Amino acid sequence: MTTAERTESAAVQSLTGQMIIAGEHVTGTGGAVYAINPASDERLQPAYAHGTADDVARASAAAVEAFAIYRNTSSLDRANFLTAIADNLDADKDALVERATAESGLPVARVTGEVGRTSGQLRMFADVLREGSWQGARIDPAQPDRTPMPRADIRQRKIALGPVAVFGASNFPLAFSVAGGDTASALAAGCPVIVKAHDAHPGTSELVGRAITAAIVTTGMPAGTFSLLYGTGRELGIALVTDPDVKAVGFTGSRSGGTALVRAAASRPEPIPVYAEMSSINPVYPLRGALRNRGADLGRAFVGSLTMGSGQFCTNPGLVIAVDGPDLDTFVDAAAEAVAASTPTPMLTPNIATSYARGVGEFDGVATEVARGTETSAPNTCRPALFGTDADTFLSSETLQQEIFGASSLVVKCRDEQQVRDVTAKLEGQLTATVHADAIDHDDAGALLQLLELKAGRILFNGWPTGVEVGHAMVHGGPYPATSDSRTTSVGSLAIERFLRPVAYQDVPSSLLPSSIADGNPEQLWRRIDGELTRD
Amino acid sequence: MTTAERTESAAVQSLTGQMIIAGEHVTGTGGAVYAINPASDERLQPAYAHGTADDVARASAAAVEAFAIYRNTSSLDRANFLTAIADNLDADKDALVERATAESGLPVARVTGEVGRTSGQLRMFADVLREGSWQGARIDPAQPDRTPMPRADIRQRKIALGPVAVFGASNFPLAFSVAGGDTASALAAGCPVIVKAHDAHPGTSELVGRAITAAIVTTGMPAGTFSLLYGTGRELGIALVTDPDVKAVGFTGSRSGGTALVRAAASRPEPIPVYAEMSSINPVYPLRGALRNRGADLGRAFVGSLTMGSGQFCTNPGLVIAVDGPDLDTFVDAAAEAVAASTPTPMLTPNIATSYARGVGEFDGVATEVARGTETSAPNTCRPALFGTDADTFLSSETLQQEIFGASSLVVKCRDEQQVRDVTAKLEGQLTATVHADAIDHDDAGALLQLLELKAGRILFNGWPTGVEVGHAMVHGGPYPATSDSRTTSVGSLAIERFLRPVAYQDVPSSLLPSSIADGNPEQLWRRIDGELTRD
Repeated sequence: MTTAERTESAAVQSLTGQMIIAGEHVTGTGGAVYAINPASDERLQPAYAHGTADDVARASAAAVEAFAIYRNTSSLDRANFLTAIADNLDADKDALVERATAESGLPVARVTGEVGRTSGQLRMFADVLREGSWQGARIDPAQPDRTPMPRADIRQRKIALGPVAVFGASNFPLAFSVAGGDTASALAAGCPVIVKAHDAHPGTSELVGRAITAAIVTTGMPAGTFSLLYGTGRELGIALVTDPDVKAVGFTGSRSGGTALVRAAASRPEPIPVYAEMSSINPVYPLRGALRNRGADLGRAFVGSLTMGSGQFCTNPGLVIAVDGPDLDTFVDAAAEAVAASTPTPMLTPNIATSYARGVGEFDGVATEVARGTETSAPNTCRPALFGTDADTFLSSETLQQEIFGASSLVVKCRDEQQVRDVTAKLEGQLTATVHADAIDHDDAGALLQLLELKAGRILFNGWPTGVEVGHAMVHGGPYPATSDSRTTSVGSLAIERFLRPVAYQDVPSSLLPSSIADGNPEQLWRRIDGELTRD
Repeated sequence: MTTAERTESAAVQSLTGQMIIAGEHVTGTGGAVYAINPASDERLQPAYAHGTADDVARASAAAVEAFAIYRNTSSLDRANFLTAIADNLDADKDALVERATAESGLPVARVTGEVGRTSGQLRMFADVLREGSWQGARIDPAQPDRTPMPRADIRQRKIALGPVAVFGASNFPLAFSVAGGDTASALAAGCPVIVKAHDAHPGTSELVGRAITAAIVTTGMPAGTFSLLYGTGRELGIALVTDPDVKAVGFTGSRSGGTALVRAAASRPEPIPVYAEMSSINPVYPLRGALRNRGADLGRAFVGSLTMGSGQFCTNPGLVIAVDGPDLDTFVDAAAEAVAASTPTPMLTPNIATSYARGVGEFDGVATEVARGTETSAPNTCRPALFGTDADTFLSSETLQQEIFGASSLVVKCRDEQQVRDVTAKLEGQLTATVHADAIDHDDAGALLQLLELKAGRILFNGWPTGVEVGHAMVHGGPYPATSDSRTTSVGSLAIERFLRPVAYQDVPSSLLPSSIADGNPEQLWRRIDGELTRD
């Protein structure tokens, strides 16, 4: 491993390697890590010294202090705060792209898009705040004359849970990290956020942390609303999740990491929710008509989705389930050709590249290798892989049902559509399920849809699962182990619900009522009056 | 213990002691229990033989089979089903009151009201189904011309989680038991329900189970939509919670019982949510102005709430926190007089009466006994108890912060309003918090409200926490240990959300789209189109 000479922009050269605790820059006292450029194995400056449980305690104390003020800020003030963060990220785009591409090996176009996705996500939550329905305002007016008992005046709104711990993901240095969807939705809800940065991209994290901190200053939010820590999952991560003042956790990462956090949170004296997005192999179902009509095109397009970003997407299509026959052969042949012709691209970190190679190695011999990408001497690359097997082998093998993080996929050949459904019924929970169907496939698709609704958070037709739209209808979630809580999503406006709880106010004097549920509807919200939606 | 001669109505005499599994009457193979009339210690016929893990497996297999059909029934069909259950309960009112009063020792008026509350709750969820917003319909229309990337058509709705296990409560033989709020909201969501009846009122449970089963037949729902089992928590209860086909759990009961279920559910290969409503001491805050103006009246009214139903409410006011002084003395003196004059009434079961006496005994010596109800030779009675202590003693004693299930309460005397807040900040989560405030108390009440929002699911002014209105704005929930999931409520229309999860449909052909998110809005729902609520 060599160390790169610092030829970066001034912004990147100004990185300090320090944590940010409630606006103060703090140097960790633990071991130091460096980002590695996976495309070159070069070590990137500066050193990032890990924090300890003491830093967690300091950040959480500041978060508690901030929470008393921050949770009572108006929706509009928080919307302005989120917008200021978005503006700062957009203004820092060049530095973010420069550093994030160096830290991740991801291409410039992808990271540029990710900056826009991240600031756009913050702006969407600003819109959610301005619209106001997130408060869940409900009023059941008093019925003083009701018999046999009068009814009290009861009103309901949702309030913030409290300080939230967010764990940055390796594979989205921006959109699922320091100012990503977990942070944006928690801040929107009125929760202070303490982020544990991912060690794969500490410099990007510091840049984003500064952007948030600057927005806190310009919009007058309390300093403890945000802290950024570096550290190990085992020490600092567990300290965060078990801190008594932390009230919820957002996590995107591995099944083992997420499960460890879930267990730690459940064993606290006061258990708290953990929203962990973990593991999904995202089955793809090319149905018979679609295979007949466009098998080769589908095979090629499938490999496009599979190899995008070295396959390092939560929604990467790691499984194809289809009825065996010549049309499926056409699909597989085209896919194999595309895999063989694919260019090796760097993975996010040396560890991830090693794990990928190990995962692919474990498939060898259990399934049949159909194609591999070309070899290369470049470090940390992903050689795409395509395997094939039959349904019985798949169902009897735990290995083949595991996620390989990276551009590897497995084609499971079934005798008939019934076996396709039998295999599906035995799958674990998934983030996505993809169906390719033509008109002739209508009945098969309908029967499959019934099963897929119970297995996946998002079902898509005639497209590819990679690429998760940030909007109001998106669900990036799904039954375990896709996530630890299938009732939620980590992408899209519904994500704010994860950090809220309802409170009822019975006969509270009007002078003390929150404005969202006050008489006269001063915030002009959609509210439920005796169960009926109205803006009156 | 004597055995009563059977002088009951024909309906009650027809009780069989059998479980109901998917419409079939099944005699348990485990140990038999009898209901006990706590007012007389008489044993009530018939014997109820406990089921085993085999019965759980049979009920859950039937629930899975039913789920495939039941979850796809229309909102209107399920509304009719819930209404049919409500009608059956109302028609069976006399038998229900007869058996439930005998099994619980609760007065006829109370149980009669509870029948109406239970059928009314079912009718409320029928209304929720007809209104339709429970489906959470959202549509983000396609933007084929968007640059740089077109946007797909994405739609979202909520679907049922799967079979739900419900644990009946001891203290509401109807409203929180076989056809209570958990069952009503789960059935409304589209989830089959398997109830474990509480051993305190097996006969009432059987009557209600028959009413549900009859409604299944008349409305043509699949038989496995409902099963009723008897058994121990340790064996049958754990078998239910760890059954791989059970996808959520509703529970009302003790902290130890609820916590055991939460732990069991979290250690499953696939963890599932447990909605456990457990433990709350429901602090009451008579503020200075209110005490000055009406201290004696408040003291008497407080004891009315405390002793109602032998204090066996989840929302029983077990704690009074106030500033010491002569006005508080007036409150305490009036309360003491009312407690001393209170009539002993039976508790629900001999075990509950024993636990109550033990709990009160543990307070003796730690806090000061202010008053006790009169002694009686009747069995299983609750002798109301009022204790007093100072804030420092309270905060240093784990015992005094525990719930005593029954009509016992503790007055904590504070130096000043700041100490009232200091004590409050250290309380565990609560179902309710009650403030008595006059105009002069406005500032104190406002400061307290800020703390109480973070501690309780419902905050009420100038009333009493016992009595939980079933409506759209109610929250019967709260931070741990009041419940295991503060994001939810077990009473009120929001309770349906516990049994739903969102699913996104991307570019799904219109012929396969569920009607709630179909073009043209055939169900005439309120839907979010690009985030904006509309009925178009």
